Amino acid sequence: MPAVVVVHGGAWSVPDKLAKAVVDGVKMAALDGFSVLERGGTALDAVEAAVRNLEDNVTFNAGHGAVLNADGDVELDAIIMDGRTLGSGAVSSVKNIPNPVSLARAVMEKTPHLLLTSRGANLFAESIGMASVPTDTLVTANEREKWEEHRSYVAGVREDFNSKWAHDTVGAVAVDSAGNVACATSTGGIRNKMVGRVGDAPIIGCGGYADNSSGAVSCTGHGESILKVTLARLILSHMEQGKSAAESSQLALQYMGERVRGAGGVIVVSPSGQWAAEFTTVRMSWAAVAKDNLWYGLEPGERFEEALPH
Amino acid sequence: MPAVVVVHGGAWSVPDKLAKAVVDGVKMAALDGFSVLERGGTALDAVEAAVRNLEDNVTFNAGHGAVLNADGDVELDAIIMDGRTLGSGAVSSVKNIPNPVSLARAVMEKTPHLLLTSRGANLFAESIGMASVPTDTLVTANEREKWEEHRSYVAGVREDFNSKWAHDTVGAVAVDSAGNVACATSTGGIRNKMVGRVGDAPIIGCGGYADNSSGAVSCTGHGESILKVTLARLILSHMEQGKSAAESSQLALQYMGERVRGAGGVIVVSPSGQWAAEFTTVRMSWAAVAKDNLWYGLEPGERFEEALPH
Repeated sequence: MPAVVVVHGGAWSVPDKLAKAVVDGVKMAALDGFSVLERGGTALDAVEAAVRNLEDNVTFNAGHGAVLNADGDVELDAIIMDGRTLGSGAVSSVKNIPNPVSLARAVMEKTPHLLLTSRGANLFAESIGMASVPTDTLVTANEREKWEEHRSYVAGVREDFNSKWAHDTVGAVAVDSAGNVACATSTGGIRNKMVGRVGDAPIIGCGGYADNSSGAVSCTGHGESILKVTLARLILSHMEQGKSAAESSQLALQYMGERVRGAGGVIVVSPSGQWAAEFTTVRMSWAAVAKDNLWYGLEPGERFEEALPH
Repeated sequence: MPAVVVVHGGAWSVPDKLAKAVVDGVKMAALDGFSVLERGGTALDAVEAAVRNLEDNVTFNAGHGAVLNADGDVELDAIIMDGRTLGSGAVSSVKNIPNPVSLARAVMEKTPHLLLTSRGANLFAESIGMASVPTDTLVTANEREKWEEHRSYVAGVREDFNSKWAHDTVGAVAVDSAGNVACATSTGGIRNKMVGRVGDAPIIGCGGYADNSSGAVSCTGHGESILKVTLARLILSHMEQGKSAAESSQLALQYMGERVRGAGGVIVVSPSGQWAAEFTTVRMSWAAVAKDNLWYGLEPGERFEEALPH
């Protein structure tokens, strides 16, 4: 079976000045995830590594570089899912954790639960000896500035979140040579969100889903819209009925646009190694790596290809 | 269109001494929800009323009568969803709120978000003037006793939650005479759960889903298993493909048993007024009300019928 890793760095109106940084970032993360597969790691190991790479990169809204909520605080959401067992772990509204995807994996592997939220997620992190960091460590000077600007711009919380304000969740999907699929998604959510707001990212079937019998998906875009249509699960329902990864993604994104007027982006792999990266936002940074090639893009329809060094 | 309300009081090994109380409770709640429809309320109004009734009844694990977590505290989860718009509101891990389903509805109607968690959910409740109550108001003497007993019984958090310990989420689904469907689910979760554990109840597509184009579902049972298979969404996927409410429920519950070894129960309505109440646990209390009849049951295959007084 052909092993593949696909990552995204968020579907939104990426400004020109960030274009190079986000494309470079997703390429690096995809290569990082793929190197895990080459060293014999599982799809689950690969998506965790790729998402950690994106969380560590301040260019992206996840882990380091996350956006601030209405209180000027950082609350992070993440999920990881193993297509072999449908086992999954997630955290919502967790603070002070630089790599929420790894905390999500610990929820999956070390508790009988699937989702821990807020203080409970932090208590669990502490109980397993996972290091926490001060909030300021996660926040960039640029984000403090953007947050102040945003607060003076918006009238209140009923602002249209389908607007140009950033929704740059990160995510990864992978299939390993045994045909096992996995997904992971991580985000700081929406800038100036209400305290305790949870978006699609940590919600199974919405921000991500992985099932060896159909494939793996990670989503990004307007979280509330993704939740309403359970976007990840919807794409895999189409794939279960024999549609390709690309067609399933397009159908589901089109439905989300028509039914709830939301835009977003998705990355998908099938157990046989078919993959897709589709979006209805202005831009989405994505990259995919298989045996000999790296593909990537940012604009609609864009698909650059590079040979991998061997 | 025939209007219908169906409610459940949880799918688990209901002990004999509780049998009468849970059956009486679901009958009352279903009648309460149906009376809302008769007075011209929407399906959304009906499911909120039915679930509030169950939350107010200390027999059930939701609102008053909720179970205690590992800290001896009450953390509540709830969702409500409107099949007209796919609009939905939910709260997870909220404290001191006697009717979480109404807070969930306020999240849907008064914020741009779908899910608020923990402290953020309580801050929101405060901001809209929703009364909070001391934890002790929600906890019964019987629950304090059961919680002590449970703590001395279990070795740790890795206990098998598929066991006989209570999972009695409550829920309601309804279709009104205009063919609009809605669902609501509310729970205290699993006794002695980790702090911050969120189960299926407040998760869209898992604890509930409502879509005028297919139907409405509310789920109960082993939360982690329901999450893994996104049970509510799975049932509606079968219905979208033309299967009946009962067959779709049976297929999805059977799949959950085979794939992740979880048991549960569901109630379902279709936009045309077809309904079902199915479960794979030992017992599930449920009741359904339509124009002239009340149906109810507790044991597998049981379906009692009473004429409604007019």
